[in-house]
Amino acid sequence: MRIIECIPNVSEGRRAEVVDAIAAAIRGVSGVRLLDYSSDPAHNRSVFTFAGDADGVKAAVLALYERALPAIDLRTHRGEHPRLGAVEVVPFVPIDGVSMADCVALAKEVAQEVTTRFGVPTYLYEEASLNPARKNLEDIRRGEYEGLAAKMRAPEWAPDFGAPTPHPTAGASVIGARMPLIAYNINLDTNRLDVARKIAAGIRHSSGGFRFVKAAGFELKERGIVQVSMNLTNYEKTPIFRVFETVKREAERYGVSILESEIVGLVPAAALHATAEYYLQIAGFNANQVLENKLRAAE
Amino acid sequence: MRIIECIPNVSEGRRAEVVDAIAAAIRGVSGVRLLDYSSDPAHNRSVFTFAGDADGVKAAVLALYERALPAIDLRTHRGEHPRLGAVEVVPFVPIDGVSMADCVALAKEVAQEVTTRFGVPTYLYEEASLNPARKNLEDIRRGEYEGLAAKMRAPEWAPDFGAPTPHPTAGASVIGARMPLIAYNINLDTNRLDVARKIAAGIRHSSGGFRFVKAAGFELKERGIVQVSMNLTNYEKTPIFRVFETVKREAERYGVSILESEIVGLVPAAALHATAEYYLQIAGFNANQVLENKLRAAE
Repeated sequence: MRIIECIPNVSEGRRAEVVDAIAAAIRGVSGVRLLDYSSDPAHNRSVFTFAGDADGVKAAVLALYERALPAIDLRTHRGEHPRLGAVEVVPFVPIDGVSMADCVALAKEVAQEVTTRFGVPTYLYEEASLNPARKNLEDIRRGEYEGLAAKMRAPEWAPDFGAPTPHPTAGASVIGARMPLIAYNINLDTNRLDVARKIAAGIRHSSGGFRFVKAAGFELKERGIVQVSMNLTNYEKTPIFRVFETVKREAERYGVSILESEIVGLVPAAALHATAEYYLQIAGFNANQVLENKLRAAE
Repeated sequence: MRIIECIPNVSEGRRAEVVDAIAAAIRGVSGVRLLDYSSDPAHNRSVFTFAGDADGVKAAVLALYERALPAIDLRTHRGEHPRLGAVEVVPFVPIDGVSMADCVALAKEVAQEVTTRFGVPTYLYEEASLNPARKNLEDIRRGEYEGLAAKMRAPEWAPDFGAPTPHPTAGASVIGARMPLIAYNINLDTNRLDVARKIAAGIRHSSGGFRFVKAAGFELKERGIVQVSMNLTNYEKTPIFRVFETVKREAERYGVSILESEIVGLVPAAALHATAEYYLQIAGFNANQVLENKLRAAE
């Protein structure tokens, strides 16, 4: 089986009819399975997760643009989450029988097609990036939609495809390839935002922490607690259990304990198996010892 | 998909040609997949693991008897592991799309057929047992092959199928249905066998421990360490992480730490996922968040 996962983020999280219409467009593409979609009204943003082979996910991305672009106008869009595009970011992720190189090639092909067909300038990011200074989504997005026209005039921020002019209502898109990402939050048994922020600063790559962790501290006001909100961008090299244990230890420093953690959306089974191996100190374990893997391998 | 797993234990672990011939007989049954087999020469015993639908696993069990019975003679069999039959125990385990009741019905059907076709008296055990005093394999096996003729003469030990007389070379068989079993060992960083034995006594059901744990302490002489060797017979009700943490805590009592643990053979993915949930304190997790589960559910 050749499976690529695609997880576009779209700048609409309040109008359910728009979000549902986009979901319906993805479902309408044969050979593609819509696995999940969810909206955050405060962020005014939705995330769609689907999977299929290269042709299928390409067709689904184009169907998504077709439905989203007429419905979203960034000139009037407001939300807590930074954004520079109506269809903000489109990552392709290798899941099964597909290499990272395959996903990079697909990202380039789709980015070119989006520009040609819809007139939206596109940037390539992460593994598909052609330029080390433009690998991170956050760097590309800095300045947001409102600052995009000025930013694009600088030669170093010319898009990879299309003219250096934002699409009037849709801004630009960031398209690329990456490892599966785990959206992982740890809630702390305190209302001290400074503690969540200090811990986030200690574990994230940008300020000296783990190579594949992005993190920020947030307040969950309605619950009177704080959260270390993370993206784990390579769970093989920076595993979830090491991040959890470090957060726990850092919290102890402030007399704070972990209330709970949460996985937002999907997690690869291998990330959970590695966690069990670590805590149970299992020696010599291999994936073929998982009953379900063994059954499928024998099919 | 309707999948039943079957894990027969056969009293031969030294003659590779006999073990391989049994494996070949199982492989020869269409619709059945041989997942694993391994032999323990000290125990003089082998374990076969295969899966398929009810008709398939029934045919594979009969093929196994056909090959094993002429090759094994318990009158001359010696090994460290207690045994009462050439084909000692045949459990059926529900894996996917099959209920425990289905497996109980299959166990009764196969037990009757084994007695009719091969003249081996059979006992029903675990979920298939008709008698609460004959639920546990250990109780049925007590006295072993050598004591079987005398034991069978007692009315309470008449077999469920067949005359109360052992098969001359093959003894009797114990056939039934049960939950997936996890064979799990914890190695301790000490050579004190008394510590392993005390911990085993503390955690196993028979002496006051967890409901679904069988345990014994062993010496691993060649490594100069000891082992708490366990069978976890219902990982949903007595989860692996609770057993691990209890062994760790009990070992601390003697100033001993855990060196490593090992899973022998196969483990259901759900047992590993529950372990990750526990240690990472994950709130509100469900199996559909596992990427691979979601992909399969959408197929």
